[in-house]
Amino acid sequence: MATTTISVAERCAAANQASRTLATLPSGIKDAALEAIAAAVQDRADEILEANARDLESAREGDYPPAFLDKLTLDQSRVQAMVAGVHTIRTLPDPVGEVTDGWRLPNGLDVRKVRVPLGVVAVVYEARPNVTIDCTALAVKSGNAIVLRGSSQVAQSNAVLAAIATEAALGAGIPEGAIGLVAGGGREEMAELATQDGVVDLIVPRGGEGLKAALEEVATVPVIYAASGNCHVYVDAGADFDMAHDIVINAKTQRPGVCNSVETLLVHRDAAPAFLPRMLGSLREAGVELRADARAKAAAGALADSLLDAVDEDWDTEFLAMILAVGVVDSVQDAVEHVNRHGSGHSEAIVTSSVASAQAFERGVDAAAVYVNASTRFTDGFEFGMGAEIGNSTQKLHARGPIGMRELCTYKYVVEGSGQVRP
Amino acid sequence: MATTTISVAERCAAANQASRTLATLPSGIKDAALEAIAAAVQDRADEILEANARDLESAREGDYPPAFLDKLTLDQSRVQAMVAGVHTIRTLPDPVGEVTDGWRLPNGLDVRKVRVPLGVVAVVYEARPNVTIDCTALAVKSGNAIVLRGSSQVAQSNAVLAAIATEAALGAGIPEGAIGLVAGGGREEMAELATQDGVVDLIVPRGGEGLKAALEEVATVPVIYAASGNCHVYVDAGADFDMAHDIVINAKTQRPGVCNSVETLLVHRDAAPAFLPRMLGSLREAGVELRADARAKAAAGALADSLLDAVDEDWDTEFLAMILAVGVVDSVQDAVEHVNRHGSGHSEAIVTSSVASAQAFERGVDAAAVYVNASTRFTDGFEFGMGAEIGNSTQKLHARGPIGMRELCTYKYVVEGSGQVRP
Repeated sequence: MATTTISVAERCAAANQASRTLATLPSGIKDAALEAIAAAVQDRADEILEANARDLESAREGDYPPAFLDKLTLDQSRVQAMVAGVHTIRTLPDPVGEVTDGWRLPNGLDVRKVRVPLGVVAVVYEARPNVTIDCTALAVKSGNAIVLRGSSQVAQSNAVLAAIATEAALGAGIPEGAIGLVAGGGREEMAELATQDGVVDLIVPRGGEGLKAALEEVATVPVIYAASGNCHVYVDAGADFDMAHDIVINAKTQRPGVCNSVETLLVHRDAAPAFLPRMLGSLREAGVELRADARAKAAAGALADSLLDAVDEDWDTEFLAMILAVGVVDSVQDAVEHVNRHGSGHSEAIVTSSVASAQAFERGVDAAAVYVNASTRFTDGFEFGMGAEIGNSTQKLHARGPIGMRELCTYKYVVEGSGQVRP
Repeated sequence: MATTTISVAERCAAANQASRTLATLPSGIKDAALEAIAAAVQDRADEILEANARDLESAREGDYPPAFLDKLTLDQSRVQAMVAGVHTIRTLPDPVGEVTDGWRLPNGLDVRKVRVPLGVVAVVYEARPNVTIDCTALAVKSGNAIVLRGSSQVAQSNAVLAAIATEAALGAGIPEGAIGLVAGGGREEMAELATQDGVVDLIVPRGGEGLKAALEEVATVPVIYAASGNCHVYVDAGADFDMAHDIVINAKTQRPGVCNSVETLLVHRDAAPAFLPRMLGSLREAGVELRADARAKAAAGALADSLLDAVDEDWDTEFLAMILAVGVVDSVQDAVEHVNRHGSGHSEAIVTSSVASAQAFERGVDAAAVYVNASTRFTDGFEFGMGAEIGNSTQKLHARGPIGMRELCTYKYVVEGSGQVRP
């Protein structure tokens, strides 16, 4: 594709310029742009797949594991998923202009707290080329300009996707510069992007720990880092054991490689003897390696000898694999303390029949998402009904949990009066 | 005062420990603690004033300007103001536990977004000892532990105030460690405080640019910096000139040394000839130095010769003094563009009779607070009805505008189900 290469700084400045207009665009224009983007991705699927085939051809020459190559790969169904994702975002309410609070002051001033776009959001991502379209759609709908910096392995796929989105958006009235792809996936480009203070408002990294560390080293622009997910399921005394069983199996085995899967099972001492033998049996059957503390072993019955001993660091480890640490605690308070000490503040679940236990866990656990009688696997923008997510935050400032369109916004106070001055 | 000195790290760790309990305290206990703090400050006013007198005695030996010494000084009326401030915060609603959003998912899960305390908030402040009590009250009510690092010039005042607040709070059921004063106001202590990652959740600096720069250099803990306030009043064509006159006088002269005072007056070209002569005359009479562009001069009538010429940097300067830049613009769009180019995103006002102009300004200006027909001077937590503020933010992430109790909170998602697992 013949494009004039412009510098990262120029790309960001153009995005900043575009953001002024984007912030005031009516929803109708933004929705029309999403409609156009979806249609263009659909119509030009062959072009996208051809570019992706070229990327894959090069990638296969590298020494990448098959799982990584799979992440790079697009096919008809993945293209259709992108199209569907854009349509979902289009149908969600526009976050811009939402009045989240408002009141009248004693002096007659009307104060409204109004949601407005952040301005320019940059996404630094690895592998999956669908991120190009997902994040562009989220940015357009939330009135933000976006700067995309994908990885070099799918440079051609990303270039075609960004070009298709840009062309479609421009045709629908989105200003030039609103969607920008940084050419070149090197560390230098990332450093330049990460230091555009006052031009780029937020960077969201989507990728592994290496990417985050590299960004942390250079970034002066605010970054929302997604920490790891060391998540727990606590099974209370008197819980519905069938429910607990199914939740643990789901949270551990449905997709063990993701951040909202469970890494530690805690069981109340009164529940352990009746619950653990069947639970651990099912987990073993499902192929889960079990690392148990002494009390869990003691309650495991016939399975005891087949369990590994949990060591201290197991409680702090995000396995992201078919491995589960298992411990017994004395009370819901002990479970809360364990979770707050070892958890990463991502997703934590209690299975209980007791209102008091549910309340103690909900209030006591310091995490982005706290579940009562449900799997931790639901912490996800799409599952929460926010449309696609641009990432998932375990930090406490600005955005916690899924980063959807609202989290790509800030607010302003609009204050209307009739000549009020301060006495 | 005989206290065992503990390190900054120990102080922060104790605060972190206390924050777990604080987060779950019912409002009644927190309100009782505020009641007790107010009463104790009232009852022990003499002790506070004696400590302050000792601080002042030492400070007078230094080479400080009278305005600075005034900031250090406490008297009966300032102590009463502290007491009243604590009572105001007590009567405000508890932000913790507020459900700011909630919905039911198609699978039956109930999602609630619940406001919860950040955890540990540190305030790094200069001079004014009343900050010790104001910020402690905000922290207690919002369920946060607080670490205070005041300046060495009022170390004795701060120590007495913190001791009084701590004792009163403990008696009312606030956990030990919830209120901590860092002994020693040196840069080393600040650096230690600013690097307590994972222990301190937020630092808010209250002080001059020197303090902010020093903090920026060392901080790894998140900091909310209050940028300067280069604020504008724009007088539209067809505005009520009497209203505009009073708003400009108020915004410029009522307290010129603060961040929400106005630094530039912009006037629509159609309003300039009728409005500027009287406006500029009143400003001159009030002792304001006027720096005007050529078109403002041309519209100034008899006053033209007495105006200074505005130079480029005047548009970007926060004078914090009785100086005002004055310019003429062609339209509300030009005013918006000028404000977005030169403003610092603090407080911006339009005086207009036109709904269309008001809307264009409200939507187009990128600032924490946008005023229609009111003085910029209202951007303040107390004026906005939030009780005292811990600072004022011009950044876009997390908190924008006054940082009150809600801004000292984050949120968690509480998700209640009946056994849901992810398909």
